[in-house]
Amino acid sequence: MSLLIVGSVALDNILTPTDRQDNVLGGAGTYFSYAASFFTPVQLSGVVGDDFPPEHLQMLRNRNVDIRGVEIRKGEKTFRWTGRYLENMNDRETLETQLNVLGQEPPKLPQAFTNAKYVFLGNAPPSVQMKTLDQLQGADLVAADTMNLWIDVEREPLLELLQRIDGLVLNDSEAKMLTGELNLVTAAKKILEMGLRFVVVKKGEHGSLFLSEHEMYLVPAFPTETVVDPTGAGDSFAGGMMGYLAASGTTSAEAIRTGIVYGTLIASSTVGGFGLDRLAELTKERLDEKLERFRKMVAF
Amino acid sequence: MSLLIVGSVALDNILTPTDRQDNVLGGAGTYFSYAASFFTPVQLSGVVGDDFPPEHLQMLRNRNVDIRGVEIRKGEKTFRWTGRYLENMNDRETLETQLNVLGQEPPKLPQAFTNAKYVFLGNAPPSVQMKTLDQLQGADLVAADTMNLWIDVEREPLLELLQRIDGLVLNDSEAKMLTGELNLVTAAKKILEMGLRFVVVKKGEHGSLFLSEHEMYLVPAFPTETVVDPTGAGDSFAGGMMGYLAASGTTSAEAIRTGIVYGTLIASSTVGGFGLDRLAELTKERLDEKLERFRKMVAF
Repeated sequence: MSLLIVGSVALDNILTPTDRQDNVLGGAGTYFSYAASFFTPVQLSGVVGDDFPPEHLQMLRNRNVDIRGVEIRKGEKTFRWTGRYLENMNDRETLETQLNVLGQEPPKLPQAFTNAKYVFLGNAPPSVQMKTLDQLQGADLVAADTMNLWIDVEREPLLELLQRIDGLVLNDSEAKMLTGELNLVTAAKKILEMGLRFVVVKKGEHGSLFLSEHEMYLVPAFPTETVVDPTGAGDSFAGGMMGYLAASGTTSAEAIRTGIVYGTLIASSTVGGFGLDRLAELTKERLDEKLERFRKMVAF
Repeated sequence: MSLLIVGSVALDNILTPTDRQDNVLGGAGTYFSYAASFFTPVQLSGVVGDDFPPEHLQMLRNRNVDIRGVEIRKGEKTFRWTGRYLENMNDRETLETQLNVLGQEPPKLPQAFTNAKYVFLGNAPPSVQMKTLDQLQGADLVAADTMNLWIDVEREPLLELLQRIDGLVLNDSEAKMLTGELNLVTAAKKILEMGLRFVVVKKGEHGSLFLSEHEMYLVPAFPTETVVDPTGAGDSFAGGMMGYLAASGTTSAEAIRTGIVYGTLIASSTVGGFGLDRLAELTKERLDEKLERFRKMVAF
């Protein structure tokens, strides 16, 4: 079934304790699309400036990502993020954000994308995410990401959004912030009650938690010793989850769980290199081998 | 098979953000024994003062804990710990430690305990843990706990101990401290190479990691909304693990994993009340029901 992601396409400058890389292809939309493309064709909606290297778009096209929804704005610059990871490789600080095209009018969905059956609304102001919702016709499952900024400054639109979508994917600190709860299970339950069918709480190196009315699933992170650049881990996770779901053509909790497992495995590759470097070495066959190794670590 | 725990028996004063309880029965030896007693008889070696309420010892006896190894020192006082949990219920600060009998000569093992087949050396100076080892004859599996203090001030004896035992159970910050590694998988591998057959790294609310030469297992924590008092969670975890192992009569990685799962479930009950309050409501049948619910959350 068709999968649409609305998300940022960016150029990142990434500093780690031991390395630095500039002009790395990034953005939630990019990581999500690439991860999802292991399972299904993807429709990507985003916006870049005319400084954006065309070979990146070609690369996405080669991955079966439909980039008709990526608007290239003449005379404008692509969104650029510069960040530094601290010694523990979990915490990071933003050194510079150049919103550029992301600060302007959001791109409109091509007509061909409006009847997508599976939709992921990448992190954006909830009011903008709702404008995307308004353009959709008959999606089977819509999930969204958000961030601390919108919980803080766009709380009401966010709560309205949650009433209109099926699932929310957010990290643990955001879940605590959104609910004012320190206990993560309690926080997830409260978020579910905000009008959702399911919640996925990402805990970084500690894995993730899925909650729906009748099911709770726990998925540890896939253990990895090689953490080169954590950028895009969460977006790869969501992309793997939604890509698997769209390919499966179902929306059951059980299928979402398998999607989360795939997302977990893809994210563990993402962090092994800068940008998409390590994902480029991954194949569906290797993913399935990794899944069997993971199953042996987790099942009891 | 016989199971011996050498560990502290204490009276705790516990402060939480919303409550306070004094003279709570505690200590690693107590929590460990109680948890293990769901599976097998336990031999407990420890020391208390003559201020120790005899009903606590009777309660342990009723749980099939052999307390011939608990020395009651006349005119002396029991080890007492006073601590306060912070708002997040994970971090805590020690307000007062009265070592009392724990600061004196450690208790000697009764002859009847020296041929125990499964042995757990509760947290103590590694030099003292080795004195226990010297009294043992032909144990099948010996595991130990340790703490940041000994990693800091008794590093050499600790490294010597690790060469002489099978398994180490420690928490994530201790694993990082012992190895100087920030990545937990790398840290666990390095600890394994210190001469052990297996390592169990406890991550509190994030579960645990088992590592042996050929196996790695990931066990999430059992999700709980009710955290009243986290004291003794780690000791209950180790007690459940070793109790199951001793009852199974094997030492395979697979059996240790099942033990870890049981330990995880018991620990999630421990934190639901002060001291042993919630464990007193637990039965082997309820544990097995909980295990099946946990399996549904984790297996994929």
